[in-house]
Amino acid sequence: MTIRVGIMGYGNLGRGVELALRHNPDMELKAVFTRRNPDSVHLLTEGAQVLEASKAVSMADEIDVMILCGGSATDLPEQTPYYAQYFNVIDSFDTHAHIPQHFAAVDAAAKKSGKLGLISVGWDPGMFSVSRLYADCILPQGSSYTFWGKGVSQGHSDAIRRIPGVVDARQYTIPVQKALDEVRSGSCPQLTTREKHTRECFVVAEEGADKAAIEQAIVTMPNYFADYDTTVHFISKEEMERDHSGIPHGGFVIHTGKTGAENEHNHTIEYRLTLDSNPEFTSSVLVAYARAVYRMAKEGQTGCKTVFDVAPAYLSAKDGEQLRASML
Amino acid sequence: MTIRVGIMGYGNLGRGVELALRHNPDMELKAVFTRRNPDSVHLLTEGAQVLEASKAVSMADEIDVMILCGGSATDLPEQTPYYAQYFNVIDSFDTHAHIPQHFAAVDAAAKKSGKLGLISVGWDPGMFSVSRLYADCILPQGSSYTFWGKGVSQGHSDAIRRIPGVVDARQYTIPVQKALDEVRSGSCPQLTTREKHTRECFVVAEEGADKAAIEQAIVTMPNYFADYDTTVHFISKEEMERDHSGIPHGGFVIHTGKTGAENEHNHTIEYRLTLDSNPEFTSSVLVAYARAVYRMAKEGQTGCKTVFDVAPAYLSAKDGEQLRASML
Repeated sequence: MTIRVGIMGYGNLGRGVELALRHNPDMELKAVFTRRNPDSVHLLTEGAQVLEASKAVSMADEIDVMILCGGSATDLPEQTPYYAQYFNVIDSFDTHAHIPQHFAAVDAAAKKSGKLGLISVGWDPGMFSVSRLYADCILPQGSSYTFWGKGVSQGHSDAIRRIPGVVDARQYTIPVQKALDEVRSGSCPQLTTREKHTRECFVVAEEGADKAAIEQAIVTMPNYFADYDTTVHFISKEEMERDHSGIPHGGFVIHTGKTGAENEHNHTIEYRLTLDSNPEFTSSVLVAYARAVYRMAKEGQTGCKTVFDVAPAYLSAKDGEQLRASML
Repeated sequence: MTIRVGIMGYGNLGRGVELALRHNPDMELKAVFTRRNPDSVHLLTEGAQVLEASKAVSMADEIDVMILCGGSATDLPEQTPYYAQYFNVIDSFDTHAHIPQHFAAVDAAAKKSGKLGLISVGWDPGMFSVSRLYADCILPQGSSYTFWGKGVSQGHSDAIRRIPGVVDARQYTIPVQKALDEVRSGSCPQLTTREKHTRECFVVAEEGADKAAIEQAIVTMPNYFADYDTTVHFISKEEMERDHSGIPHGGFVIHTGKTGAENEHNHTIEYRLTLDSNPEFTSSVLVAYARAVYRMAKEGQTGCKTVFDVAPAYLSAKDGEQLRASML
């Protein structure tokens, strides 16, 4: 029997989940739920339904895990607790500062319904969080550093697009090589925001726009760019489409720590992701953890969990014996 | 209340466990058990006892987790199932091919006694295994590669020392840069043993020994060196002590995989360790997982487990709320 999956929201992430399910033959896409007109949504998966989001609850008995593919700003804070009343749910909520309150809301709903919720699944939060935790536990006498990129930041790209005179924009976050080298050396440097990452912006301006003013508006923008060394390149619409249509991302979690009678031995643990498609990778993580949700719920676990609470074996379609023989 | 730990065997690994416990204030070294004369063993830890191995069982009520620090060849296959009759146990059994039978023996003993056993904890098997498993589950359309080094292989160093005319030897396993680059490119190359690693040997020969014969004996040695490109350097006893007294190691788990409607997106997951001291890092992993053993046993779990069965949160002294707020 396959694990029956629902997808709530069919943007980049939802489409990525649909694609990832193809590589997991023990799982099956049952239905996609959308706020758009279902007739306008065309799936790649034969046999899966497209339904209005409002119809989801009526499918509660036919879906083992609902994967919530909305945004963290406004969708998930409402959707995850709501759907946890009816389904085992999983989301990629990534507003780090609001995780405790999101956890509490999902936990309350899922405990009441007897369902299981798993939040903040992806790569950061997600695989990077797991890497930070393992490293910190193994080498408590040490420090963890997280670097992002090279990759496209959607939030920063959007911020540039809101500047008058800007037609389109793409912003890349780039880790500073010198900072990476310093961290790897084990010297545990104190690094400022500016020392860790640079920001590179590619901008299509309206004809006749004041490019100097746009550049100034970008590099001085508080919270987004003012604390970074930012470079701005003006390019044509054609160059944007040709060279910047992808959504690559990635980054590093580097932990250095010391052992020995005099702390004389240095160790470096480094976890690195290099991703051609940020949403498709996040979706792939969601699908693997959806398998875990199904199993943990079947064991009777309820309430809200995070990646910290999931034993790695739950992610695999293989059983314990196969895993021990092939991967340990 | 602290977690009371026993150490069985006080070689490099056992001493490393003692040192690692210093960085974990929620844990306490209760006793070290040795086959040597206890009077000849001097601990760094005040208040901890040194006892003959035969006395261990009488301490069953005073030790929450026994960390078994013997060797995989002959010690652990006997010790881990034996002590699982009396203690929650953890070991670093690393003979990959024999893990299934070791698991079965420990599982039977621990289920009978109602104790918990955790085997094959370290970095390979251990953290590398966990990295392979996560990566394979996230990107099933992909391949994992494990590289070791640069680091000292004790087994290969010992093999050289058994050659007539050799006084001392140190063997380094070194990953081949070209192979690393090929794997990272996502091309999923088929690599032979020779293409993945080279072996570099530093040898102190007896005065008047036939160095050409020693070198020939090394590079043609079946299983150990014949399948590798091996270089041999003859050095003095003083050079050996000065330049090769450490036990560094490390390596890489690199997984590349594809996503997308046409598998058009490549992703690389890389986990890398760079370790000044192989035994001290392995000991640090053991200590973090000993905390997990204590907690899982307290929950009533019994039988044999591996790192695949341990949720990351169990490794940490912090509670779920702290972890979510600080590390997710």
